[in-house]
Amino acid sequence: MAEEAELEVEPSSTSRSEQQAPHFLRDIIFHGKFKLLRALNPEENVHCWHGLYFQDGQRRVDYVLTYTMKKPGGGRSSRQSMHLLAENAVARSLRRGPHSRGEHVQHHQAQNTGGSSHLPSSAAADVELGCVGETFSVHEDHKAFRREEFEGKLREMGLELEKDEDTKIPGVGFVKIHAPWNVLCREAEFMKLKMPTKKVYEMKHSSGVMDKISSLVSKALEPLHPHVEEHQPKNIKHLSHTFSREKQHLFDLSDKDCFFDSKTRGSIVFEILKRTKCKAKYSMGITSLLGNGVYSAAYPLHDGDINDSAEANDRKLLYEEWANYSVFYKYQPIGLVRKYFGEKIGLYFAWLGLYTQMLIPASLVGVIVFLYGCATVDDNIPSMEICHPRNNITMCPLCDRVCSYWKLSSACGTARASHLFDNPATVFFSIFMALWAAMFMEHWKRRQMRLNYEWDLTGFEDEEDHPRAEYEFRVMQKSMNKDQKSQHKMEKLTCQDRLPAYTTNLVMMLLMIGVTFAIVFGVILYRISTKAALHMSSKITRNNVQLTVKTTAAIINLVVILILDEVYGAVARWLTVLEVPKTDKSFEERLIFKTFILKFFNAFTPIIYIAFFRGRLVGRPGSYLYVFESYRMEECAHGGCLMELCIQLSITMLGKQLIQNNLFEIGVPKLKKLIRYIRSKQGAYKEEERQKKLQRYETDHFLEPFAGLTPEYMEMIIQFGFVTLFVASFPLAPLFALLNNIIEIRLDAKKFVTELRRPVAARAKDIGIWYNILRGVAKVAVIINAFVISFTSDFIPRMVYQYMYSPDGSMHGFVNHTLSYFNVSHFQEGKETMDPLYLGYRVEICRYKDYREPPWSATPYEISKEFWTVLAVRLAFVIVFQNVVMLMSDVVDWLIPDIPKDISVQMHKEKILLVDLFMKEEQGKVQILESKSFTGGKDNCSRSNNNNSTIAHQRSGLHANSTNSF
Amino acid sequence: MAEEAELEVEPSSTSRSEQQAPHFLRDIIFHGKFKLLRALNPEENVHCWHGLYFQDGQRRVDYVLTYTMKKPGGGRSSRQSMHLLAENAVARSLRRGPHSRGEHVQHHQAQNTGGSSHLPSSAAADVELGCVGETFSVHEDHKAFRREEFEGKLREMGLELEKDEDTKIPGVGFVKIHAPWNVLCREAEFMKLKMPTKKVYEMKHSSGVMDKISSLVSKALEPLHPHVEEHQPKNIKHLSHTFSREKQHLFDLSDKDCFFDSKTRGSIVFEILKRTKCKAKYSMGITSLLGNGVYSAAYPLHDGDINDSAEANDRKLLYEEWANYSVFYKYQPIGLVRKYFGEKIGLYFAWLGLYTQMLIPASLVGVIVFLYGCATVDDNIPSMEICHPRNNITMCPLCDRVCSYWKLSSACGTARASHLFDNPATVFFSIFMALWAAMFMEHWKRRQMRLNYEWDLTGFEDEEDHPRAEYEFRVMQKSMNKDQKSQHKMEKLTCQDRLPAYTTNLVMMLLMIGVTFAIVFGVILYRISTKAALHMSSKITRNNVQLTVKTTAAIINLVVILILDEVYGAVARWLTVLEVPKTDKSFEERLIFKTFILKFFNAFTPIIYIAFFRGRLVGRPGSYLYVFESYRMEECAHGGCLMELCIQLSITMLGKQLIQNNLFEIGVPKLKKLIRYIRSKQGAYKEEERQKKLQRYETDHFLEPFAGLTPEYMEMIIQFGFVTLFVASFPLAPLFALLNNIIEIRLDAKKFVTELRRPVAARAKDIGIWYNILRGVAKVAVIINAFVISFTSDFIPRMVYQYMYSPDGSMHGFVNHTLSYFNVSHFQEGKETMDPLYLGYRVEICRYKDYREPPWSATPYEISKEFWTVLAVRLAFVIVFQNVVMLMSDVVDWLIPDIPKDISVQMHKEKILLVDLFMKEEQGKVQILESKSFTGGKDNCSRSNNNNSTIAHQRSGLHANSTNSF
Repeated sequence: MAEEAELEVEPSSTSRSEQQAPHFLRDIIFHGKFKLLRALNPEENVHCWHGLYFQDGQRRVDYVLTYTMKKPGGGRSSRQSMHLLAENAVARSLRRGPHSRGEHVQHHQAQNTGGSSHLPSSAAADVELGCVGETFSVHEDHKAFRREEFEGKLREMGLELEKDEDTKIPGVGFVKIHAPWNVLCREAEFMKLKMPTKKVYEMKHSSGVMDKISSLVSKALEPLHPHVEEHQPKNIKHLSHTFSREKQHLFDLSDKDCFFDSKTRGSIVFEILKRTKCKAKYSMGITSLLGNGVYSAAYPLHDGDINDSAEANDRKLLYEEWANYSVFYKYQPIGLVRKYFGEKIGLYFAWLGLYTQMLIPASLVGVIVFLYGCATVDDNIPSMEICHPRNNITMCPLCDRVCSYWKLSSACGTARASHLFDNPATVFFSIFMALWAAMFMEHWKRRQMRLNYEWDLTGFEDEEDHPRAEYEFRVMQKSMNKDQKSQHKMEKLTCQDRLPAYTTNLVMMLLMIGVTFAIVFGVILYRISTKAALHMSSKITRNNVQLTVKTTAAIINLVVILILDEVYGAVARWLTVLEVPKTDKSFEERLIFKTFILKFFNAFTPIIYIAFFRGRLVGRPGSYLYVFESYRMEECAHGGCLMELCIQLSITMLGKQLIQNNLFEIGVPKLKKLIRYIRSKQGAYKEEERQKKLQRYETDHFLEPFAGLTPEYMEMIIQFGFVTLFVASFPLAPLFALLNNIIEIRLDAKKFVTELRRPVAARAKDIGIWYNILRGVAKVAVIINAFVISFTSDFIPRMVYQYMYSPDGSMHGFVNHTLSYFNVSHFQEGKETMDPLYLGYRVEICRYKDYREPPWSATPYEISKEFWTVLAVRLAFVIVFQNVVMLMSDVVDWLIPDIPKDISVQMHKEKILLVDLFMKEEQGKVQILESKSFTGGKDNCSRSNNNNSTIAHQRSGLHANSTNSF
Repeated sequence: MAEEAELEVEPSSTSRSEQQAPHFLRDIIFHGKFKLLRALNPEENVHCWHGLYFQDGQRRVDYVLTYTMKKPGGGRSSRQSMHLLAENAVARSLRRGPHSRGEHVQHHQAQNTGGSSHLPSSAAADVELGCVGETFSVHEDHKAFRREEFEGKLREMGLELEKDEDTKIPGVGFVKIHAPWNVLCREAEFMKLKMPTKKVYEMKHSSGVMDKISSLVSKALEPLHPHVEEHQPKNIKHLSHTFSREKQHLFDLSDKDCFFDSKTRGSIVFEILKRTKCKAKYSMGITSLLGNGVYSAAYPLHDGDINDSAEANDRKLLYEEWANYSVFYKYQPIGLVRKYFGEKIGLYFAWLGLYTQMLIPASLVGVIVFLYGCATVDDNIPSMEICHPRNNITMCPLCDRVCSYWKLSSACGTARASHLFDNPATVFFSIFMALWAAMFMEHWKRRQMRLNYEWDLTGFEDEEDHPRAEYEFRVMQKSMNKDQKSQHKMEKLTCQDRLPAYTTNLVMMLLMIGVTFAIVFGVILYRISTKAALHMSSKITRNNVQLTVKTTAAIINLVVILILDEVYGAVARWLTVLEVPKTDKSFEERLIFKTFILKFFNAFTPIIYIAFFRGRLVGRPGSYLYVFESYRMEECAHGGCLMELCIQLSITMLGKQLIQNNLFEIGVPKLKKLIRYIRSKQGAYKEEERQKKLQRYETDHFLEPFAGLTPEYMEMIIQFGFVTLFVASFPLAPLFALLNNIIEIRLDAKKFVTELRRPVAARAKDIGIWYNILRGVAKVAVIINAFVISFTSDFIPRMVYQYMYSPDGSMHGFVNHTLSYFNVSHFQEGKETMDPLYLGYRVEICRYKDYREPPWSATPYEISKEFWTVLAVRLAFVIVFQNVVMLMSDVVDWLIPDIPKDISVQMHKEKILLVDLFMKEEQGKVQILESKSFTGGKDNCSRSNNNNSTIAHQRSGLHANSTNSF
């Protein structure tokens, strides 16, 4: 831990220039520097701490808005109309999309700080007072005006604001926002936040045998739990209830500062920001203001520093116990993650954790299956028959003219190797993995339910989001156009308005998929053409070059996949922006859908080609099929395509993980750091001075903005595809995924804790569309695995031979059975081999791998009955496999209840406890009121008076009843 | 309407005896009588009206508990221990299950009124006073004691009770329960009921083209809407908010009697009843008390009478506008149904209505497909070829020895008939129906969402039910047994406790399914044996008898299905009771699951046999396969099994619907009425006198108790199975289902309105497990239809012939292609036909329907290549069909949003309006408080004072801020 922090400090100690380096790097540097400096300068520490509070040191900064201040008469002072301004903003955001708002900050900042010297704060103050000097451009003037209006509105909502324009960062002004207690209460009530009440209850642990075992297990797993103090005994739980000011007495309000934690405060302020609208030409919310550059960024503050000397805070705790490679073997402190980042991010990490956990058994079984293949490779009769020198079968030439006859025993190596992946255990493994996927889904549902309960989300419903700024702008534009013709105001975009965007979408998607296909086809052509060239070269170089070609082709595929991945991400975003979806949620869903389709095709097209198309349409000796009249269609090696599939799969998967994760996510930042280190040698010393005094909100301003969880999820879903889709051909996939994920968790954690601005905590009950995508992938996986087993592997032909044709029920003679006969004299003119005596003897009948009639039958070289038999069995296997496995998945789904038993019991218990609590309270009230009315005390509060009289009335009614009717 | 009511009065005007006739009949009779009598006796009417209120005429009766009063020293006065008593009760309920509680009433009542004269109410009063005379049995004593305790508890909860033991019904005491206003408010708050607020808003209708069309459509459909006044303009909607006493001012409380309607009041009282527990040896809730016979029934009251002269009430309105065959073409007044019966029953009828509506397009397309078959029957080349006298193909004998050769043209009729159901349109229709099912699901989801919104159920969460009485009793028993060994108390039943029940379940389920198979097999044997006998008889009788055998076999199947349906219903209930599920919900789910499995197997086993097994393993001429060594396996007629499947299907479906619906649900009650009419001639006259004065709660007491929606849903699901599962073979199924459902809706409505006690209104967001079952059936339907098309019909062989073998691409020669050759000289000894000259000439080669090698090939009579080709294509078709249709269903699922657009927009709008409302209120509060503090007014209510000061503080803080920092 400590060493790591030190390590990151090292280069920064000589750092100078601040302008161009990435912001998150600076942050790391600041932390290191603070640590060094604070030892010398204790009051600096206090000052920094104050960055979390207003000037008075009392009121917490819950949220920060930043804006750019421009030098009077600076660069772009041309008079721009409001309309143009808005259009600019939209155009800009069109280029960037929803989560890149933060980028505007840098954009503006770079413009401003690059082109001008420091802005005196007095000028900004002028704006505040409304005295718009002629030196200001109308542009800036409008912005300041908007800000003033917006901040006024915020104050109306009860928020408290403090401005800070005299910061260490030139050209950036900060508005610090504090939500006072009564605003917090009000909003918590509106948002129906569930808060813990004073009422605690003990969760009973019955002392059955099962419980003893489970407690033993949990003791054994103790070292795997992170050292995060949860500050409360495990058996005691606070009852939760929707917060309501009328029921304040239920809650423990002794410490009003801590009742709402920083995450909640941030999201409450964000809620108010979203609701507040400027009444400009069209109503502008915070998203429009950010989009238009009125504000440049909006973010809540991190809890504090993460370096060793900083005070204990949640962020530091997370850094030590979570975002750390040295604790890779431990569980994640999900509760703390949720407490700090909110439910949505908490759910992502919980999901990632569960996925990684579930990969452990999968990779174990995968390794066992692989080892089984290794162990039985010598007992495999078909490969023995191929390798046996006695069975020296003469094979037909693999191409016309240039190729010659060859011996089957030369394919011995590949035949043995393909047994590793093509054995009966593979069938078992793909069934296992299909069930594993179903189990994973079920487990996740349960985990989600448990988290929902623990995080008091039961009863919370996702709400329709506010419309996006771009959408509102488009609607306004449309209604303005309409206004000239008719009177009424348009309220939404119709299908017609979106038709062009939809068309573009469709065309672009098809085009992109077409590009993928084209590239895959190009790689195939590369392979075919080199192969054709090879056949003409000498025998010695052939084997070496063949391997080279295979490898280079796979690497080309990989590189193309990596490049297209980035391209497709950008294209999908652009297309989604074109669509102008109404809400952020719908934007996200459409984006995810498109990205998923494109990336999925990108990653799996070459693999699908190898699995299902390669070697299918090759013709037969004497009438091979050709593409472009000169290149023969590719064929798989004698052992079947499964091994080649496996090679392609492993290269793609490993390459993607290694390069995308390690190079992009770890390497690139390190490289940037290195560049920065070299540059800093010539930098200015003044920078260092300034950094010392940076406040919390300034430090956070240099961090990267949070860009959503989509890329993180997407990476994992594609990986899930690799793990499940072709698992029949590559049983080691789960193992590689597991190794990757162990790193991935900590990598992501580090990013969230150290490199990103704190995201606004979002509530979420589930992982949304991702769950459906997972389900879809798992479903497709069943079908694809069925086809891989029955069509790509030799499993079915072997079975058919063994049970239908074998004379003694064994596999002996299988190889002979799969080979058809060809009479050399049937070669057409110009197709016979140029080197008929290559093997040293004259060949009359050669063999080739196919099910065709022999030359002496009535219909020579026609597809034989065996072919149709094998095909029927293959198809029957697909039907049986698909339906049986799907049925089993459904049974698993149905057997495992979605809500864990203990949770449902506990929820029921809590419900009863809560009603009890209210009933007691009710009775208490009645008693107090009765004693009051007995003593004749007056009560001014009309409501409780009312209550009282009703109750009294009822009571007397009761008495009347009991005396009258009984 | 009026005639109908009159009609029902007729027999009752002379009715006398009350003891044995079904109660709902009595009710009908009473209504009729009241109508007659009220004209003479107006004050009677008032008296009856008062049955809805307490004696004071002010307080409404919200709920009624009844109990039996026994004559002192009557029949069973032996001293029974409490333990025995409890055991009795449980044993009794074991026999009857959860929803048959009401039956106890009659049970007890029959015991009591049968064995004893009227009980003087003074004796009961004694019990009330706690003076337990020695004349009472301990049994009755205990019960009275429990009642007293329970009623005391109810009073503690704030309910008001009135006893009535001096009723017209001897031996039955009534406890009328009234929930006063404050209790209603409290419970509404606990139950989080959403109530309409005062705030209304107008739903805007934009004047686009689409809206104009939709308003035109709705105008055109106007006559289809029932005449139910909704009392509010259509465009205005009340905002809803969870009821809370602190926010009373939001709600329109001008009429406190109507704020909570009768349904809500009933369910609120029921909620309290469920929560209230007697502390006996083990804690007893209302379910235990009912189970133990402490109370005999518990029900809320109907709103009033349904006859013409009764005052307007919701029940009467429902009777006139809903439960009436004359309005069969109209929409259902679902809103009113929900208002009267609650959400759960409302959802059932909404579902049934949507299903019926969706059947309209399905049956239309079905009829068109059928007509297409009829129209093209003369253009069908294969049947033309069969019928053509020139193609006089000699067929092989259909059995050994006794059968002889026959001419293919004799199969002309069946070949033509089978074209009706076996044509390309069938393939289209089964794809259509698969998509139809997906559309239905989606539509239902949307309708459900819309209803949820309209009924203010958004945000409502299903809660875990209270444990069932039987479960609690078992737990108590177990803990008592344990007590002798160890100290701690058991809290639940473990798997071990349930193991015997689970085992019984499994064994019984398998046994029952075995019974179904055995019976189906028996019917098959019946057919085979009669057929074998037939072959020996003369040619003339043969055809007639063959038809008779087919029909009788189908009818036997039908009768068996009908009988087993009832048996299986009882078995499933018994098995579920054995399991002792914890909650009512889990009881229902387990019961439904078992009933569904059994009834499904029962209904579909004979059909599945015909579709997939009949005629598959028949051997070939010369080596036919036999069962029991003497009976040949059944074969289908030459046209394929599809027609026979169609016959079986239509007989089963129509028979089931006609007999189960019309005979059981309409006929049996009419029959009972007739019996009653004959008996009443000798009855007592005094009865009539008594009936005049019956109060509402007494009238309702005679009605049947509500037995849950399970049977209603189950009937519909099995029907849905008929409509979707084998729709490829019977395109008219949707039409028959539609006709049945139009009656079914009104039949069920009548039952609910007139024949059942009012059910306690239950809230529900969805139709629960039924939706999953529907989905499951729809999924299975895709697979079964794929198999029916590819294996049962001749679609695939025709396609294969046309595209692979036909010389000219037409169907000419298809019949010849499907027939194999048999050399008569290859008959084994003793298998050749006894009448070789039956056709008048000597036969050397005969033909039979199969794909086998001809006698002159190397492997005669082996399965031929054509067979494997056709099989492969069949299997490929199954794979393609299944996956394409499933994909299309998923696309439909994905394309249609679950939440209708307008609803989601409206929900969002309401949310904003609500926040606005609260914010305004908030500001109003601040202003009032400020003006108060300005005038120096004092405020004793500490809470609002607190608020005030906080706000004041904030305000001043704001001022300070704005002056200091800006």
